[in-house]
Amino acid sequence: MDTGDTAWILTSASFVLLMTPGLALFYGGMVRAKSVLNMMMMSFGALGLIGVLWVLYGYSMAFGDDVGGGLLGDPAEYFGLSGLMGEDNLSGTLPGMAFVGFQAVFAILTVALISGAIADRAKFGAWMLFAGVWSTLVYFPVAHWVFAFDADGYVGGWIANRLAAIDFAGGTAVHINAGAAALALVLVLGKRKGFGREPMRPHNLPMVMLGAGLLWFGWFGFNAGSAVTSGNTAAVAWVNTLVATSAAILGWLLTERFRDGHATSLGAASGAVAGLVAITPACAAVSPVGAIVIGVLAGVLCALAVGLKYKLGYDDSLDVVGVHLVGGLWGTIAVGFLATDTAPNGVNGLFFGGGVDQLWRQVVGALAVLVFSFVLTWVIGTVIQRTTGFRLDVEDEVTGIDQVEHAETAYDWGALGGGALGAATRPAARHAAPASTSEVSA
Amino acid sequence: MDTGDTAWILTSASFVLLMTPGLALFYGGMVRAKSVLNMMMMSFGALGLIGVLWVLYGYSMAFGDDVGGGLLGDPAEYFGLSGLMGEDNLSGTLPGMAFVGFQAVFAILTVALISGAIADRAKFGAWMLFAGVWSTLVYFPVAHWVFAFDADGYVGGWIANRLAAIDFAGGTAVHINAGAAALALVLVLGKRKGFGREPMRPHNLPMVMLGAGLLWFGWFGFNAGSAVTSGNTAAVAWVNTLVATSAAILGWLLTERFRDGHATSLGAASGAVAGLVAITPACAAVSPVGAIVIGVLAGVLCALAVGLKYKLGYDDSLDVVGVHLVGGLWGTIAVGFLATDTAPNGVNGLFFGGGVDQLWRQVVGALAVLVFSFVLTWVIGTVIQRTTGFRLDVEDEVTGIDQVEHAETAYDWGALGGGALGAATRPAARHAAPASTSEVSA
Amino acid sequence: MDTGDTAWILTSASFVLLMTPGLALFYGGMVRAKSVLNMMMMSFGALGLIGVLWVLYGYSMAFGDDVGGGLLGDPAEYFGLSGLMGEDNLSGTLPGMAFVGFQAVFAILTVALISGAIADRAKFGAWMLFAGVWSTLVYFPVAHWVFAFDADGYVGGWIANRLAAIDFAGGTAVHINAGAAALALVLVLGKRKGFGREPMRPHNLPMVMLGAGLLWFGWFGFNAGSAVTSGNTAAVAWVNTLVATSAAILGWLLTERFRDGHATSLGAASGAVAGLVAITPACAAVSPVGAIVIGVLAGVLCALAVGLKYKLGYDDSLDVVGVHLVGGLWGTIAVGFLATDTAPNGVNGLFFGGGVDQLWRQVVGALAVLVFSFVLTWVIGTVIQRTTGFRLDVEDEVTGIDQVEHAETAYDWGALGGGALGAATRPAARHAAPASTSEVSA
Repeated sequence: MDTGDTAWILTSASFVLLMTPGLALFYGGMVRAKSVLNMMMMSFGALGLIGVLWVLYGYSMAFGDDVGGGLLGDPAEYFGLSGLMGEDNLSGTLPGMAFVGFQAVFAILTVALISGAIADRAKFGAWMLFAGVWSTLVYFPVAHWVFAFDADGYVGGWIANRLAAIDFAGGTAVHINAGAAALALVLVLGKRKGFGREPMRPHNLPMVMLGAGLLWFGWFGFNAGSAVTSGNTAAVAWVNTLVATSAAILGWLLTERFRDGHATSLGAASGAVAGLVAITPACAAVSPVGAIVIGVLAGVLCALAVGLKYKLGYDDSLDVVGVHLVGGLWGTIAVGFLATDTAPNGVNGLFFGGGVDQLWRQVVGALAVLVFSFVLTWVIGTVIQRTTGFRLDVEDEVTGIDQVEHAETAYDWGALGGGALGAATRPAARHAAPASTSEVSA
Repeated sequence: MDTGDTAWILTSASFVLLMTPGLALFYGGMVRAKSVLNMMMMSFGALGLIGVLWVLYGYSMAFGDDVGGGLLGDPAEYFGLSGLMGEDNLSGTLPGMAFVGFQAVFAILTVALISGAIADRAKFGAWMLFAGVWSTLVYFPVAHWVFAFDADGYVGGWIANRLAAIDFAGGTAVHINAGAAALALVLVLGKRKGFGREPMRPHNLPMVMLGAGLLWFGWFGFNAGSAVTSGNTAAVAWVNTLVATSAAILGWLLTERFRDGHATSLGAASGAVAGLVAITPACAAVSPVGAIVIGVLAGVLCALAVGLKYKLGYDDSLDVVGVHLVGGLWGTIAVGFLATDTAPNGVNGLFFGGGVDQLWRQVVGALAVLVFSFVLTWVIGTVIQRTTGFRLDVEDEVTGIDQVEHAETAYDWGALGGGALGAATRPAARHAAPASTSEVSA
Repeated sequence: MDTGDTAWILTSASFVLLMTPGLALFYGGMVRAKSVLNMMMMSFGALGLIGVLWVLYGYSMAFGDDVGGGLLGDPAEYFGLSGLMGEDNLSGTLPGMAFVGFQAVFAILTVALISGAIADRAKFGAWMLFAGVWSTLVYFPVAHWVFAFDADGYVGGWIANRLAAIDFAGGTAVHINAGAAALALVLVLGKRKGFGREPMRPHNLPMVMLGAGLLWFGWFGFNAGSAVTSGNTAAVAWVNTLVATSAAILGWLLTERFRDGHATSLGAASGAVAGLVAITPACAAVSPVGAIVIGVLAGVLCALAVGLKYKLGYDDSLDVVGVHLVGGLWGTIAVGFLATDTAPNGVNGLFFGGGVDQLWRQVVGALAVLVFSFVLTWVIGTVIQRTTGFRLDVEDEVTGIDQVEHAETAYDWGALGGGALGAATRPAARHAAPASTSEVSA
């Protein structure tokens, strides 16, 4: 047991927990004011449900003894995490429970990511049902495929070990997985009323940027924490996570600037997330210059990809497909080109003389998760829609899902002092004091 | 000195510092727009004042040599933290100053917690006076009772050592303490004008959810940091803190759903905090399944308890009593039932064959802090009210405390481009582009 | 390689990364609603551009082999961070890449700090150009002067080693540097239309307080992380960072109270930042009582200094000069008076019997950075203004920079359920339930 490694993983797990509220803000700011609470509640519902399921049987399904073929862990092995509290229960140099906690927040986040695609139009109870079923049938198995590594006497998942695709922190298991699920769910639920005709502007862009900032912060735990030690691998992953994200902001903003004439704040926030998604599988396998290449192209590709929904007519409301599926595919496949064996977790990719050996592994791993997730999600979504119902009534959608599903509205500015909104009665504080040193000219 | 332990405690201390701004947002979003700044200022005032008092004499009162009976540390021993900066000044495996910092942010947060009960109606200067007196007469001694453990040549507090109640991270010292103080203060100050008749809706629910997210994040430092080492105990506390909170969200939302027909975002945020409160004393003494039980019942109990104020007629404005007192009592007493000696810091509670031995210790510890805090707070509050005055004038309360006490209003939307609020002149950004790949249709 | 040290520095680097989004909120809340996005975009632009430049050549310029006189590192030495990914590449007890990452986020933040001075009136493209040139010509060299310490076979910067001024975490390199640059840029760009005549109130003060909270949180990484180890030095820096900030809040609020009659939330947020700035160079060189003195005077001095712009007629819009230049100068010079050799990184200052030896070093270091930054920034700004243009057209400024430069507006409340803003259709959630236990009285 190493106290430094443990400190870093507990810290990283805390960072990743914060990503889900961060995502709730990122998504919540992008919808209209009448549906922000429902959007945030899909994330908070995942925080509630998936945390409990993970403890009950999710961890066992992902990291229990393989039941065969690297497809699934034994769901009953650590039911309720029994037997994992002892001092002698180690996961590498960590207390076993530190690893349990770190992986728990990945499961929560992945489910929450999907919700952005179905803004404004999913019944909350149906979403919760979906979240539970999807995590059980899709996420927990895929986490086993990708994150469970063979160890002394332990057999792990087929993508991590037999295929040996490189996915350091979840380009396949998290982002392609959530992105493919989002696409399937969008096809099941259909478009929002007015999609493609009425403007549906983000109601609060500073909230989107706050969310992006919290996501970036938390992503250092996500990526550098995936080293499960506190050393050189984590440090390289950290720097690559920084610089790929920086480069993706530039890539997205330049794409906007050349195409539309303006660089937008929504573009900066989206570019950051695109870069974070793309560097996730690659962060310990490429050099910082490789990370810049991955990032800048992630920014450009995703900035182009988010327009597809209007051309093809699917309402991926907050661009889960355009950012997480496209960015996840790009990052996962880019490993095949840009990986280098000078990086802590790298082999030589195509551009470093390694031929196509790693590239085809990356492609197979990416497609396997994509197809598995898309098909199962479509089935799960369709069954829910035809039984309990999933899609909100159109009149309720027009009224606003916050009121209908949660009996709340997000904001009430009406009680501002003096009654009239914005009609401030006196200029307060330092910025208002004309020609005076007075901070408050009352 | 262990660098890993130190890293975790410095990290944890930073997390806990962030909880007070998080609380300011959580509370601030729940009040009306005309009093959000004052609500946040009660937290920021505590950040200012209690930080300084802790360094001057608070640490000494809590962790100085016992002056007798486990009731108080010697206030003069480490005045100004003198003598604690040396390399050889250790607290276990930590630099002594790391422990000082970690405990400082507990003191700040506990004071800030109280403020939620007296929204909209406390003079700011009186609040600051109260904060200083209360921390000195109530918090610093109680922290000694609960958090000062006997060590080689050092005699600590009576609850921690003589009574041997289990309070891992502050169910008594922080939550029962603040909750009981809140109740006393509410009785001293009386109700807001219009309480129980006029709706007093939260003005900004996304802000409440952001606050809840930051609190949860910070609480990992609060609970898992209380291990004061980076190892198995911290890891178990981390996982229990996660899953109890998840379960409490479910408990609160299900209670709402069955009773009212809707699961609300305010319920999700409140449920999270209720779960965090309840698991605080228990997080290293129960199993993850025990944590789920504590969490889900915390959600149910607190969801029911917050309605009491309307029945009984006390204006606990933001439910400090309903969440922190009730949740703190539940969690502290639940240790007597659900603790298990398989947990790092546990003994066997009633349900694990340990009889009532631990249960009565928990009850005595909880009640001791409750009564002490309630009585002293009532006295302190009454003295302030009768001398300098504590309660705001009713006409000022109606005008809005932000203007009256701080000469500010929180928001000014009036300067939005084009002048008309919400009358956006053009649909900007990716969500608005109908049938086009253009990001910005200018 | 020490895993605990590495955990703390990776954590600290993550904290400091979060400071830039925190700053974006802090600044963004202070401007009018029509220019919040541009204000935030100046920070996000820095996050994009400076991260990439740091990896390409910034790290080399700051920490490469000295090219002579302690003035600059060799820009080509670690171009693209080449050669730094190996296990054996250490920086003290850290992986070299951990130090690279930690320093990267300092470079980003310093550039972003400047932007507060030129709110509402800088073309975004020109800002990005400025950011790239300024970091290259000013920040990277100054970081070498201050942060590059001599080591075995390595020659570092002149302020750190030859002058031996004490600047633990960047009072000169970050705060005086950014503050002096801000002043120069304000003189180049001129005042906003209406400065000193029209009120320009902060449009969202809770956002300012959120930003201040995130800055404080991140600043623990900034200051205590600058120990580059996880031990006593970091712990002392942590406590001093806490208490100086607490004291500065009190200092600013008391100044306001005595002068204006009210303590404001903007004052609390500004006071916190002033304290953080001032303790930055001193945090490991003074005692906690010394930190209180530095903090409380930082609060008072900066509260007075922010009024100067109205007297002297320069539009330092969000008080970068008043807080960062003044606070940075005060903190840097205070080391000469208040440093003590009982502190981990201290020598005896004037008040501790050390005479003026350290004091003159502090003054020289502070002035050197001030003059260098002011002059070069004035030249860079003037060249940009006269070539590509820097200042926005006045009519565009009146329309609102968010629309003109980014084709966005920050908020759209218009779609709130029911259509009428604030005309909530039903009182939702627990605070609204009169005389009932019902959470939602629908």
